[in-house]
Amino acid sequence: MHAGDTLTSEQLQTRVFAALDSFRIEIPSWGFSNTGTRFGKFTQAAAATTIEEKFADAAEVNKLTGVVPTMALHVLWDLPNGVSDVPSIQALVKKYGIQSGSINPNLFQDQEYKYGSICNPSTEIRGNALAHLLDSVEIGRELGAKDVSLWIADGSNYPGTQSMSKRIGYMEEVLTSTHAALAPTQRMLVEYKPFEPAFYHTDIADWGMALELARRAGPQAKVLVDTGHHLQGTNIEQIVTWLLHVGGLGGFHFNDRKYADDDLTLGSIDPYQVFRIFHEILSSDAKGVDDIAFMIDQSHNLKGKLEAMIQTVVTAQELYAKAALVDHAKLAELQQSCRLVEAEETFRGAFWTDVRPIIREWREARGLPASPLAALAEGGYMEKITAERGAKNAASVSSYA
Amino acid sequence: MHAGDTLTSEQLQTRVFAALDSFRIEIPSWGFSNTGTRFGKFTQAAAATTIEEKFADAAEVNKLTGVVPTMALHVLWDLPNGVSDVPSIQALVKKYGIQSGSINPNLFQDQEYKYGSICNPSTEIRGNALAHLLDSVEIGRELGAKDVSLWIADGSNYPGTQSMSKRIGYMEEVLTSTHAALAPTQRMLVEYKPFEPAFYHTDIADWGMALELARRAGPQAKVLVDTGHHLQGTNIEQIVTWLLHVGGLGGFHFNDRKYADDDLTLGSIDPYQVFRIFHEILSSDAKGVDDIAFMIDQSHNLKGKLEAMIQTVVTAQELYAKAALVDHAKLAELQQSCRLVEAEETFRGAFWTDVRPIIREWREARGLPASPLAALAEGGYMEKITAERGAKNAASVSSYA
Amino acid sequence: MHAGDTLTSEQLQTRVFAALDSFRIEIPSWGFSNTGTRFGKFTQAAAATTIEEKFADAAEVNKLTGVVPTMALHVLWDLPNGVSDVPSIQALVKKYGIQSGSINPNLFQDQEYKYGSICNPSTEIRGNALAHLLDSVEIGRELGAKDVSLWIADGSNYPGTQSMSKRIGYMEEVLTSTHAALAPTQRMLVEYKPFEPAFYHTDIADWGMALELARRAGPQAKVLVDTGHHLQGTNIEQIVTWLLHVGGLGGFHFNDRKYADDDLTLGSIDPYQVFRIFHEILSSDAKGVDDIAFMIDQSHNLKGKLEAMIQTVVTAQELYAKAALVDHAKLAELQQSCRLVEAEETFRGAFWTDVRPIIREWREARGLPASPLAALAEGGYMEKITAERGAKNAASVSSYA
Amino acid sequence: MHAGDTLTSEQLQTRVFAALDSFRIEIPSWGFSNTGTRFGKFTQAAAATTIEEKFADAAEVNKLTGVVPTMALHVLWDLPNGVSDVPSIQALVKKYGIQSGSINPNLFQDQEYKYGSICNPSTEIRGNALAHLLDSVEIGRELGAKDVSLWIADGSNYPGTQSMSKRIGYMEEVLTSTHAALAPTQRMLVEYKPFEPAFYHTDIADWGMALELARRAGPQAKVLVDTGHHLQGTNIEQIVTWLLHVGGLGGFHFNDRKYADDDLTLGSIDPYQVFRIFHEILSSDAKGVDDIAFMIDQSHNLKGKLEAMIQTVVTAQELYAKAALVDHAKLAELQQSCRLVEAEETFRGAFWTDVRPIIREWREARGLPASPLAALAEGGYMEKITAERGAKNAASVSSYA
Repeated sequence: MHAGDTLTSEQLQTRVFAALDSFRIEIPSWGFSNTGTRFGKFTQAAAATTIEEKFADAAEVNKLTGVVPTMALHVLWDLPNGVSDVPSIQALVKKYGIQSGSINPNLFQDQEYKYGSICNPSTEIRGNALAHLLDSVEIGRELGAKDVSLWIADGSNYPGTQSMSKRIGYMEEVLTSTHAALAPTQRMLVEYKPFEPAFYHTDIADWGMALELARRAGPQAKVLVDTGHHLQGTNIEQIVTWLLHVGGLGGFHFNDRKYADDDLTLGSIDPYQVFRIFHEILSSDAKGVDDIAFMIDQSHNLKGKLEAMIQTVVTAQELYAKAALVDHAKLAELQQSCRLVEAEETFRGAFWTDVRPIIREWREARGLPASPLAALAEGGYMEKITAERGAKNAASVSSYA
Repeated sequence: MHAGDTLTSEQLQTRVFAALDSFRIEIPSWGFSNTGTRFGKFTQAAAATTIEEKFADAAEVNKLTGVVPTMALHVLWDLPNGVSDVPSIQALVKKYGIQSGSINPNLFQDQEYKYGSICNPSTEIRGNALAHLLDSVEIGRELGAKDVSLWIADGSNYPGTQSMSKRIGYMEEVLTSTHAALAPTQRMLVEYKPFEPAFYHTDIADWGMALELARRAGPQAKVLVDTGHHLQGTNIEQIVTWLLHVGGLGGFHFNDRKYADDDLTLGSIDPYQVFRIFHEILSSDAKGVDDIAFMIDQSHNLKGKLEAMIQTVVTAQELYAKAALVDHAKLAELQQSCRLVEAEETFRGAFWTDVRPIIREWREARGLPASPLAALAEGGYMEKITAERGAKNAASVSSYA
Repeated sequence: MHAGDTLTSEQLQTRVFAALDSFRIEIPSWGFSNTGTRFGKFTQAAAATTIEEKFADAAEVNKLTGVVPTMALHVLWDLPNGVSDVPSIQALVKKYGIQSGSINPNLFQDQEYKYGSICNPSTEIRGNALAHLLDSVEIGRELGAKDVSLWIADGSNYPGTQSMSKRIGYMEEVLTSTHAALAPTQRMLVEYKPFEPAFYHTDIADWGMALELARRAGPQAKVLVDTGHHLQGTNIEQIVTWLLHVGGLGGFHFNDRKYADDDLTLGSIDPYQVFRIFHEILSSDAKGVDDIAFMIDQSHNLKGKLEAMIQTVVTAQELYAKAALVDHAKLAELQQSCRLVEAEETFRGAFWTDVRPIIREWREARGLPASPLAALAEGGYMEKITAERGAKNAASVSSYA
Repeated sequence: MHAGDTLTSEQLQTRVFAALDSFRIEIPSWGFSNTGTRFGKFTQAAAATTIEEKFADAAEVNKLTGVVPTMALHVLWDLPNGVSDVPSIQALVKKYGIQSGSINPNLFQDQEYKYGSICNPSTEIRGNALAHLLDSVEIGRELGAKDVSLWIADGSNYPGTQSMSKRIGYMEEVLTSTHAALAPTQRMLVEYKPFEPAFYHTDIADWGMALELARRAGPQAKVLVDTGHHLQGTNIEQIVTWLLHVGGLGGFHFNDRKYADDDLTLGSIDPYQVFRIFHEILSSDAKGVDDIAFMIDQSHNLKGKLEAMIQTVVTAQELYAKAALVDHAKLAELQQSCRLVEAEETFRGAFWTDVRPIIREWREARGLPASPLAALAEGGYMEKITAERGAKNAASVSSYA
């Protein structure tokens, strides 16, 4: 009935250590800058406003947690000049020891994308969108980044105002052309989202659509699951299982939500769900299961940027470690014989096990601070960047109105 | 701004008449029997309790509406002895002039299906489920019915109690074997549903899963869209568009709902949505668009059985006729130039057009009663069957507790 | 079965004319300015950027529709200097013939409201919020505006980070003090919303909370129903009925949505719902039913501002006119005898009646353009304001990044 | 960052022991009988089919857990002859040592309630419903049961078919009359539910409606919160806080769900939510907080009846004990200063603490089996009742079709 019933404390430690040794997670550059809702933005004195500051912050998170070797980059915000910004990124990589993670094109901010980017009825605008995607692929190739992550914000707000059918054809064309430009080491990840910023229909609304598009684009295209991009009541871990089954899972954008795409910190609303997702992965023998990118995509509107990022990394480790405690053999047997209550207790016994003390041990064994959050609070970095960046961030407030 | 602005009344009549002449819809045998919720069943004196009564009711609906040539059959309830009941069904077909519509296996009612049918961990039970499916295919073949409609109620109620992953494999096996038994004229339709009667996961939860399974089963397998089987906020017409695009749409189970799978009469909660679904079909040039089965699947717990069925057929005709009024050329032009408000008004101008008077004309021109509901009320059929069936239905109440 | 069955065309005309003669709706000043989502803002050349431009636009909408005598004002955006801006507003009222509608305080944009305004744990910040509310009351009084509309955006993003319980007490204090400042002719309307911009909890999440707060504040406080501020599956017309029943309904913020608070134009997603809401009002004999404020609150991100506003007013008129066609006596009788299908057909027969031709007649009879949208397209106003405002709006784009 | 950081293991034990000593939970008689969905019922050999068997099962659950002194009774199923069955219940109370818990009238099963019970348009049927309620009150009084729990299943399936407004008036009358019959020691609890078995509107749809009705009925009427009776995205703990604030919380029907009212075992889908609900109660100083009835209302369709019931009791204890570990003083301070991450970690640190070992200690200290589930598996009771009841339950299957 109890994880502790079946595992000795040594076994427990062995499992947790092995799990954590293999677990890496990517943080997003935009997680360090000021963000908000459509109603406004609350700025933070310590927020990063330059790409160098973002690299510095990422390095600090990695210093304290040891499991964040890469940072996702946002082309428009981090490489505003496109490919020609690559050398300066490479310099930062070298300086801060953080590698370029996934490359994120931006097809939603330009005024011309008002009615869509790769789905826009205008051939010209679709061409511009494709050019940006090809740029992004090139950036990724030059930076040695494995993934280009495509979030297509296209859609429509009102029934009858766009042809959903034609727009599928437009997407297929652009994504196929994008795929053709990939180097053999590159992948493109196709994200889906049922609503927002388009409100009536979004062109890639669910995993079924994303998978179709990925397949038609080519073998290096996979699906990207953002945990906040699902309708209420969706069983996300089941989607993960299906994507693993068909060889279509590329990676995750982790965050949590209560109602919509709230971009809250991972596991803050429903931690049991995250545990179940990790379980599907850890219990899978599907091909490609070791090739899944774990990435954070959050919006720290109220929490301190670095604090929230570290908290997320720690939470991800804890939930991953819990999932690693599930006794697969025993569970399979109980599932096979439909002993439901015993199976459930075996399963969630792992969830209930308090792994925090063991994880502290692991950190110490790996030369890391036992509590990354405490280390952040005490280490002086926050004071330093607050002093350095405060005036600039304050200025950005006054220009807001 | 107005359908009447662009169409003369003759054009309007021509369009509506053409639409209605080509529109047929299938009614389900179970729509005439007593149904309820998990909290109980309110019996109706006129409810059908035998397969012959169901055929009689279907014939009455067809007599009054003229567009219901087939009735869906439920194997367990309508052919309890399986294939050996085929001759008696054939006799009823002959007697009542209603053809056998889709064949619906039942894989949810037997006690052995407690933990699943084609996904059950037990090889034996999966074998039994396959046998029932093969029986259903044979029944369909002998009755000359085109479709076998598979609703798989399998799933689990609690995280960790079943292996979602293994169950995908089980399904693939059974569905492939079922497909192998199909005659060239037969199809199998794979339905999906996000919840109920299983509450944590249902093995075929969405259109993406249904499409994967249909494809792996074979080319005669298509997806069946039940309008009530979607999470809140789903854009159903977009799913229809995608299924048309990939050649995967087999047909519909029509009904409406406010929250879950309420099985209310079509268009009773959100008629605009039905109009939009019909529009996607009527504006599609996808291969196979003429091969879509329109079927009703409702549960008339409170409304009178025949009354509700006729009301549904009439509503379907009205919404289909409205969708037939959309000016596709004009709409395409407005969509192309992103003139949103004009496009929307062109689109919903068709929805706002009152087609009821023209449909009455069409009925009279086709020798049908102008108002099928009024004809039912006045025709004496209800009194007749109430007298015939009343005692039996009353008895079924008293045995309820 | 048909509205036309029970009403002669003269009766129909009489009812629609009477309904439209009594129907007025308020438009929001912010509906004319550029708005967007958290991902960015698509600017329009003709968008208003000053309060005078908003008054001019409102006057144009009223000129074309005749039913928009008032415009809602947003304190922070339209009266940035608070009460001292009243004289300039009065000058605009006089110049454009549009009266001041409801006064809308802003308690969400200031940096100090990061953790809440009237629910903030800081006594000082709560005091500032109260001061702003008192200012708003004074503005309303001086402008002769009846309603102060309170949307409290307060809440929290993460479980455990705020005391929901204490915050109730804070709100009660501030709202009671605000009520105490009302003139006898003023009302305060308390809006509710289940999520956004706060994601875990919003302090006034539903009508029950809003009603409690309104009652404790005092008799001139009523509830404001925003049609987009409900969880999926909510029966909004039932809430309207309850608020009417307890004397707590103050007014509406009209808009539509597919998933969240999408602020789409009224009736664009679910027009039948709007019809049902109007029916509850038109069939009610509750005290105060004539005192309900109909207000539009929308975000025209993609549609043209004036076009969208006029379309909304016209749609509201159409749905109101349809609701006015319901035969209350006949419906009551059918409801009393539980003749469900007949009751439903009587009810929605009114919805299906095409009122557009009669409304055109009414417009002409009242000296208004038969089609306000066509009149806008042809009248030259759009060209004029585009020329006047284009450069300024273009500049606001370039400063966006 | 860690419950263990602030509490010594002795303090931890003291808190958990105190919490568990004060925690009692009521189990429902219907949790031991066969239940199903609208698609059918999977019978269990050990299910109870008589009221005596239910008492025996309840006694077994109480023997193994020690915290279940009462069993909720369902009038129609457990006292089919109404008040005259009281003596036989009293005999069972005496024999099994389990007290009568809340009394649950049944206003949904009789054929006459097809269109509603206390909201039925028929005066006569409303009268019958009132008579049943008065009977239930009398039963409660004679049995010394504190609560009569009213779940009103009334509603309508289609817009326009019933007058929601009139039905409010009907309810008020009946509930006021019911309240008038209460003894001073009795309470009536008014439950709410947004859908099912009625699908378009349910007459008591949310806590706001339930609270209004309870207040109008009288001071001994309170609101009953069923955790499964909320729309997706509802913040249930906030409703609890509000009900505590206004003195309107009477008790809970505990269960869990993924989508609708799934009646799954408590905490099986979202255990963190249950923790948060308990926290609101344990941190409240509202009047009446000690008077809240904790009741289970679940449907064990697949899990073994006794197994599921014991699992639920144990889960409730664990989550209650975790909530008892929250450091209120520290949390209040962090909330006051808006130190969000620290507040959240303090809060959920309690959730992450593994209380299972301490609860085992508590059980042993109280003379109870360390693991109630293991004790059930080994104690022989299941074998005994399976042997006794198997044939009867098997027979009920064969009569099902």
